[in-house]
Amino acid sequence: MKNVITYPVSARGPADHEVRDQIVAAATEHFSRYGYEKTTVSDLAKAIGFSKAYIYKFFESKQAIGEMICANCLREIEAEVKAAVVAADRPPEKLRRMFKTLVDAGLRLFFSERKLHEIAAAAAIGHWQAAHAYEERIQKLLHDILQEGRQNGDFERKTPLDETAMAIYLVMRPYLHPLLLQHSFDYTEEAPAKLSGLVLRSLSP
Amino acid sequence: MKNVITYPVSARGPADHEVRDQIVAAATEHFSRYGYEKTTVSDLAKAIGFSKAYIYKFFESKQAIGEMICANCLREIEAEVKAAVVAADRPPEKLRRMFKTLVDAGLRLFFSERKLHEIAAAAAIGHWQAAHAYEERIQKLLHDILQEGRQNGDFERKTPLDETAMAIYLVMRPYLHPLLLQHSFDYTEEAPAKLSGLVLRSLSP
Repeated sequence: MKNVITYPVSARGPADHEVRDQIVAAATEHFSRYGYEKTTVSDLAKAIGFSKAYIYKFFESKQAIGEMICANCLREIEAEVKAAVVAADRPPEKLRRMFKTLVDAGLRLFFSERKLHEIAAAAAIGHWQAAHAYEERIQKLLHDILQEGRQNGDFERKTPLDETAMAIYLVMRPYLHPLLLQHSFDYTEEAPAKLSGLVLRSLSP
Repeated sequence: MKNVITYPVSARGPADHEVRDQIVAAATEHFSRYGYEKTTVSDLAKAIGFSKAYIYKFFESKQAIGEMICANCLREIEAEVKAAVVAADRPPEKLRRMFKTLVDAGLRLFFSERKLHEIAAAAAIGHWQAAHAYEERIQKLLHDILQEGRQNGDFERKTPLDETAMAIYLVMRPYLHPLLLQHSFDYTEEAPAKLSGLVLRSLSP
C-alpha cells in the first residue's frame, strides 16, 4: 500500500488561479507579438515553457485563453469609460464622454495593440461570452445615465426608457464593435461629437 | 497603296456602348454565379466567347467592369429608395421609409445576390467611385427631405442643416455599407424603426 503524502499548503506550489494568471499573462505577451489566429496551443506551450497537457489542465482551448485576455481588455476599456463618466457633472456631458472614450479606447486597441485587436475581432465574430457581457455592461451604464438625466430633468420622459436606451446603443454600436470600427476610420474624428449632438437633441425635454 | 474601305454605319457592327452593355450583362451573370474575386478577365472572356484583348478594348480592368455592375446595382437601390420616399406624404414618414428601404435593399443584395454583394464589398473597401457617388446621392436625398421638413415646420431649424444631415447620415451609414451591414444582422429587424424614432425625436421643433 502506497503512502499518501500530504504536503503543507505552502509546499503545494502555486495556486490554480496563479497558474491561470501566469498563462494568461504569457499568452497576452505572445499573442500581442505573433497574433492570435496563427498561434496554436503548442506554440504557446513552447513559448511559456509549459507542456501542452499542463496548459490544458487550466484552459480547455485556445479560445478559453483568448476569452480571458479579451475579458481583461474589455474590463480596462470599461474602467476608462466609467472614470470619464464619473468625472462629468451632468448626464448630457456623461453621455458625450462615454461616446468619446469608447471610440478613443477602440481606436487605441486597434492601432497600438493591433494583435490583441484580432482577439477582440474573434470575440465579436464568435459571439464570445466576454464580448456579450461587455455589451451588457455598456448598455447598463447607458441606462443609468439616461435614468439620472430623466430624474433631474435634463432628458425627456415621454419615450419608454428601454426604447431610448436601445436606440442610443444602436447609434454607438458601430464604434464599439471592433469589426465595425475598422470600416469607420474616416468618421471617428467627427462621429462622437456629431452623434452625441444628435442623441442629446433627441433627449431634450 | 492600300484601299481605305469605309463601311456604311449599319455594317460597322454594334456600337461601342452596345458591346459594353453586352460585356457588363454577361459579366453580371458570370460574377453572380462564380463570384467576383475568383474570376479573372480570362475566365470572363472565355465565358462570354470574346477574346481577352477585345474585352480590354472596352474596359481597362476587371475592376472597371465591376464598377459598372456596382453602379447599376446601386442605381437600382437608389431608385427603390426614391420611389418609397416619393410615396410618403410628409418628411418624417419620408425619413422612416428611406431608412427602412435602404436596410431592406441591402439585406436583399446580401442574401439573394450573395455574389454581387461581393462586388459591393470590394467597392466599399477600395473606395470605388461608384460607391462614393452613391453615398453622395443618398446624402443629397437626406438633405432634401430635411430641408422640406424645415420649410413646412415638421423639423427644428436651430441646428445647422449640414450638421443635422451629417449626423443622420452617420446613423444610417452602418446599414448602407455592405461590410458594416453584415455585422449587424442581429439588429436589422429593429434598427430602422428604433433609429428613425430617435432621429425624428432629435428633429422635433
